[in-house]
Amino acid sequence: MVSAGLESAGPANLEAFARMCRADPVLVDIGRAGDVVPGMTPGTILASGPRLDWGDYLGGARKAIIYGALFEGLATDLEDAEDKLARGAIRVEGCQDHGCIGSVAGIYTASMPVFVVENRAFGNRAFCNFYEGESRRRLNYGAYDDGVRDQLHFLADVIAPALREAVARAGGISLKPLMIRALHMGDELHSRNSAATLLFARELYPHLLGVAETDRRGVEETLRYLAGSDYFFLRLSMASSKATADPAHGIEGSSVVTSMALYSRGVAIRVSGLGEGWELGPYPQVDAKMFEGFTTDDIDWIGGESIINETVGLGGFAQAAAFPLQNYQGGSPQAMVEMNLAMYDITVGEHTDFKIPFLAYRGTPTAIDVFRVARTGITPVLDVGLAGRDGGQIGAGIVRAPIECFTNAVASYESIYGPAARRDATREDKEA
Amino acid sequence: MVSAGLESAGPANLEAFARMCRADPVLVDIGRAGDVVPGMTPGTILASGPRLDWGDYLGGARKAIIYGALFEGLATDLEDAEDKLARGAIRVEGCQDHGCIGSVAGIYTASMPVFVVENRAFGNRAFCNFYEGESRRRLNYGAYDDGVRDQLHFLADVIAPALREAVARAGGISLKPLMIRALHMGDELHSRNSAATLLFARELYPHLLGVAETDRRGVEETLRYLAGSDYFFLRLSMASSKATADPAHGIEGSSVVTSMALYSRGVAIRVSGLGEGWELGPYPQVDAKMFEGFTTDDIDWIGGESIINETVGLGGFAQAAAFPLQNYQGGSPQAMVEMNLAMYDITVGEHTDFKIPFLAYRGTPTAIDVFRVARTGITPVLDVGLAGRDGGQIGAGIVRAPIECFTNAVASYESIYGPAARRDATREDKEA
Repeated sequence: MVSAGLESAGPANLEAFARMCRADPVLVDIGRAGDVVPGMTPGTILASGPRLDWGDYLGGARKAIIYGALFEGLATDLEDAEDKLARGAIRVEGCQDHGCIGSVAGIYTASMPVFVVENRAFGNRAFCNFYEGESRRRLNYGAYDDGVRDQLHFLADVIAPALREAVARAGGISLKPLMIRALHMGDELHSRNSAATLLFARELYPHLLGVAETDRRGVEETLRYLAGSDYFFLRLSMASSKATADPAHGIEGSSVVTSMALYSRGVAIRVSGLGEGWELGPYPQVDAKMFEGFTTDDIDWIGGESIINETVGLGGFAQAAAFPLQNYQGGSPQAMVEMNLAMYDITVGEHTDFKIPFLAYRGTPTAIDVFRVARTGITPVLDVGLAGRDGGQIGAGIVRAPIECFTNAVASYESIYGPAARRDATREDKEA
Repeated sequence: MVSAGLESAGPANLEAFARMCRADPVLVDIGRAGDVVPGMTPGTILASGPRLDWGDYLGGARKAIIYGALFEGLATDLEDAEDKLARGAIRVEGCQDHGCIGSVAGIYTASMPVFVVENRAFGNRAFCNFYEGESRRRLNYGAYDDGVRDQLHFLADVIAPALREAVARAGGISLKPLMIRALHMGDELHSRNSAATLLFARELYPHLLGVAETDRRGVEETLRYLAGSDYFFLRLSMASSKATADPAHGIEGSSVVTSMALYSRGVAIRVSGLGEGWELGPYPQVDAKMFEGFTTDDIDWIGGESIINETVGLGGFAQAAAFPLQNYQGGSPQAMVEMNLAMYDITVGEHTDFKIPFLAYRGTPTAIDVFRVARTGITPVLDVGLAGRDGGQIGAGIVRAPIECFTNAVASYESIYGPAARRDATREDKEA
C-alpha cells in the first residue's frame, strides 16, 4: 500500500487539501430556506446535481420535483405542476449553486427549515434541510403522500422552532469536535451517524431544558425525534462538508475534486481549478444490500449529493471507522478496510483531524486528485442509500464513481492548463 | 484459531454459559447502600476482593478503607480508624458477599448511593456505587482529601436524587439493549463506556424534563455530570455483570468462573461449582500505558472487581469492539484482535447478544472454563485502571490473570468431584 503522500502533491492541490483540513464548521442557526438561502425565491425548487432543463430530469428525480411543487403549494395537481415547470413558472435549480446540499433527490422548497452551518475558518456558509425520519417513504426518496407531507410540516412547525431556540441559547454548536469523536464511535458520518446524533443531542440537552419553559411540547417532540433518528446528524455532516469543500474550490491549477453528485443521468464532479462546470459520467457501479423484496434492478438513480462527505474524507473514505455498516450495506470488515486503504492512492493527504482507530489513528484519505484516479483506475468509494422506481428507500450500499468523470476532468484540465501541467498538479516526477 | 465451541462443553458449563447469556439486567432504583444492600449496617465498610482479616489489607487498599471510615464519620482520625478496624468496631467485608461489586479499592459505606440492578430473567439484584468523576484523585483509587469528600457528598445529595426520580419516572431502564448497541459503537464496557453513557443519558432525558419542574438544579448538575463522565456507565455495566454472573454460580459440576477480583495480595477467582470460597493467585502481569511521570513500578494493587465484566464476556473479552482504547491503554489494533480471539480458546461459547462488528458480529467469548485456562496456559485478558502508591489513578492497561488461580481451581475441582470429572466438565473426549 503506497500512500499518495503530501510530498507528491503540487502546491495548488496542497492548498485545497489544507483548506479542507482547516475547516471549522459551526451550526449557527436554523432558518426557513426562503429566508436564509441566497437566491431562493418562493417559486424556486432546488434539486440534486447539475442544473438541468426540465425535460432532462428523469424518473424519480422528476417526480420528486413535482412533489416538491405540490408540497409547497406551487401547483394544484400533477398536471399543473408539469405545466408550470415546463414553462419556468416554477424554477428548478441545482442545490449546490445556492450553498445547499441535497440528500438523494435533494428537494428544497422555500418553506422548508434548513440548518445554517458557518465555516468559521473561512466565513462561508452552507445549508441542509432536515432528515425526514425513519419511514422508507420520504420526499427526498421520491415518495409523497399525506404521511410524507404531514411529517414535513411537523419538522417545520414543531421541531425546527425548538431546535432553533436551543441552538441560539447554545450560541451555536461546533460540529467538528463531534465529528472527530463520532469517527471513534463507529460512524463514518455518511451511512452511519448514530454516535454523532447522540453527541449532538448531548450538546443540546442543557439548552432544551430552558426552551421547555415556554415550548414543552416542542422539546418533548424534539427529544423523541432525536432519539428515533440515527440519521439526524447526516444533514449536519452534509452541511459541514459543503461548508468545508467550498473554500477549496476555485484554486488555480488544482486538480482536487470539490464536489460529487449523483443525478438522474449519472454522476457529476466539480474540480477546484476547473470553474463552476461539472464533469459528467454515466451511472455508477453498485454493490448493495437491498431491503427484502427488492433487487438492484429496482434502483432508480434519483440523485444524491451526500457524497460531498466522501469529497472531504468521510463516508466511504472512513469506512474502517464504521464496521457496523456491514449490517446496513453488506460487505465484510476486511473488504471495508481494503477499500478504505485504496482511497489513500487517489487522495492528496491524510486528514489532520479525522482519524480512524482501526488504522492506528491514521488520518482519513482526503482531497481526491482527478489525475490519481485517472492514472490508477481506482474510483472513489461512496456509501449511499438507494431509491426505488416506485419511490422510497429500497436498500443501501457501496457505489463507485465512474472513471469517466475523472478522465473527462483530466481532459478539461489539460485543455485549460496544457498537458505539461499534469506534473505540476500532482508532482509525480519520478513516475513521469 | 480453534473456538472452544459449545459441542465440547459439559452440561453444567453449558448451563452456566446459558444463564449468563439469558440475563436481563434492568436499573430499577437508586438507593442508599445502608438501606438497600443486604446485610449492610451503619458500621460496615465493603472492600474489593475476598474478605480479609484487617491485618492482611496492605497499602492503598488499607488506606482506602481507613478513608472510607473517615468519610462515613465512623472514626475521628487515622489512629481512631485503625484502632476501631483492628478490634472490629468497624466491620470490613467483601463487596461481593453483599451483592455489590467494587471498582478498584471498592469502598462502600452506608451513606453512599448505589445503583440497584435487577436481573429480570432470574429475579436477583446487584449493586454498584457511583463513578466519582474525572479527577485522578478518587476514594476508590485510595485518595482522600476535601475535594474527594465534597465530590462524594455532591453525588449523594445532588446527583442521586435527580437520577433516582428520573429512573422512577422511566419505570426502570433496561440495560442490556444499551450494552448491545454500545459494543457496536467502540465500547468494550470496561475501560471504555463512552457510547453506553450517551445511550443511557438519552433514555433519561425525557424523564429529566419532568424532574426539572421541581429540581432544576439537580437536573442541570446531572446533565453536566453525565456529559463530563465518559465512565459513568462503567458502574452500571459492573452492576449488570454482577447481576448476570450470580445466577451462573452454584451449578454443581460447573468449572465456569463466576467472579474475578484483584485484591491487595493478588488475584482471586470464584468458580460456579466450587462454593463460596475464592481460588487465589499472585499479582497479575501488566502491560500498561502509564500517565506521564509514572512507571509500572509505581503501581499499587489496591483491588478491583470491575473484571466481573470480563467474567461475562465484556471488557478484555470484547477488545476488538473498542479500538479507541489504544489511546488509553496502549497496544495496537492487531494485538487487540489477537488477544480477543485467544479468549475463544478458554471460554464455553459465544455470547448470543453481545457481538463484535469487526469480527463480523461474532458473539463475545463468554464463560471462562478453568480447565481450558489450565490446559492452554492462556489466561484471561483484563482491561483495568491502575492505582499508584500515593493514591489516585496513574495509568491504564491490560493485565493477565495469573495461571495459579486456575490451576488451584482445577485442584479444588478434582478434590471435590474426582479427577475423572474433568472430562465431564469440558467433554474434551478426543483430547483426553
